[in-house]
Amino acid sequence: MSFYDATVPAFLQILGSLTGILTKAEAHCKAKNIAPDVLLGARLFPDMLPLTKQIQLVCDFAGKGCARLTHSEVPSAPDTEESFDELKQRLANTVAYVKTFKPEQFDGADTRDVTFPVGPATMTLKGQQFLNNFAFPNFYFHAATAHGILRHNGVEIGKRDFLGVN
Amino acid sequence: MSFYDATVPAFLQILGSLTGILTKAEAHCKAKNIAPDVLLGARLFPDMLPLTKQIQLVCDFAGKGCARLTHSEVPSAPDTEESFDELKQRLANTVAYVKTFKPEQFDGADTRDVTFPVGPATMTLKGQQFLNNFAFPNFYFHAATAHGILRHNGVEIGKRDFLGVN
Repeated sequence: MSFYDATVPAFLQILGSLTGILTKAEAHCKAKNIAPDVLLGARLFPDMLPLTKQIQLVCDFAGKGCARLTHSEVPSAPDTEESFDELKQRLANTVAYVKTFKPEQFDGADTRDVTFPVGPATMTLKGQQFLNNFAFPNFYFHAATAHGILRHNGVEIGKRDFLGVN
Repeated sequence: MSFYDATVPAFLQILGSLTGILTKAEAHCKAKNIAPDVLLGARLFPDMLPLTKQIQLVCDFAGKGCARLTHSEVPSAPDTEESFDELKQRLANTVAYVKTFKPEQFDGADTRDVTFPVGPATMTLKGQQFLNNFAFPNFYFHAATAHGILRHNGVEIGKRDFLGVN
């Protein structure tokens, strides 16, 4: 298989599953008469990032991850989403962007250097290491944290929703 | 890079980082006079799995994942851990097991069929798909959920601990 096969489908699976999870969260708000802002701003601890920012970061680690691996221009989206619909649109935009990549753009990307910002500094890793030790763990971390925030708030979702098989 | 490079280092990173996170959780218990069982049994919602089980599942998805990809005998460890030390030993045993694999055992594993149990049924995927659409998302899901449980309970950890760079 190609390096594309190791990268793009993994991102698409979770970007899709989060769309389903947000749909369930929105329905939960309606059913329980909860203002959407309450869930969108929910956190697992006061100094953790809220749900909205977790979703925005998931999108960034997927989209920017693909761009950095393929040495494409790194996209930038302002974090302006304020509703479930807007967050689902952000996910949809990210899915569409990730799908623009062609398998051949990833050929050899596993052994090419990727230089990326880490706080105020930069780090350089081979593409495979960038993917496995930075992009994936960050991507899944924010996705699972988003799931955990909603689960903690009583939304009826489970790991099958996270995997996108529900 | 090889399929080994796409697999084993990713598992080792998080298995190591969780060891550090559990060490901080144990220190938090001592500093705040919290019985370890309280954190070990903590959940984000009553019908979610507690911290101990999250760690056990992380270990299983790493160890069994490597075994299934290489068509090795799938290891089985009883879920008997009842303390931070025992959970850290389970992580250490998993690290040692994952490190027994040689790169050549993964050669061609990305395109070989992997058949694995899913609930009462079995599923067959190519190795690459098994890794990216099943083993990784499950592995990171339980790792990030363990992190979320501890974070929610006030343990002073952050994403840098999850990535193993703290």
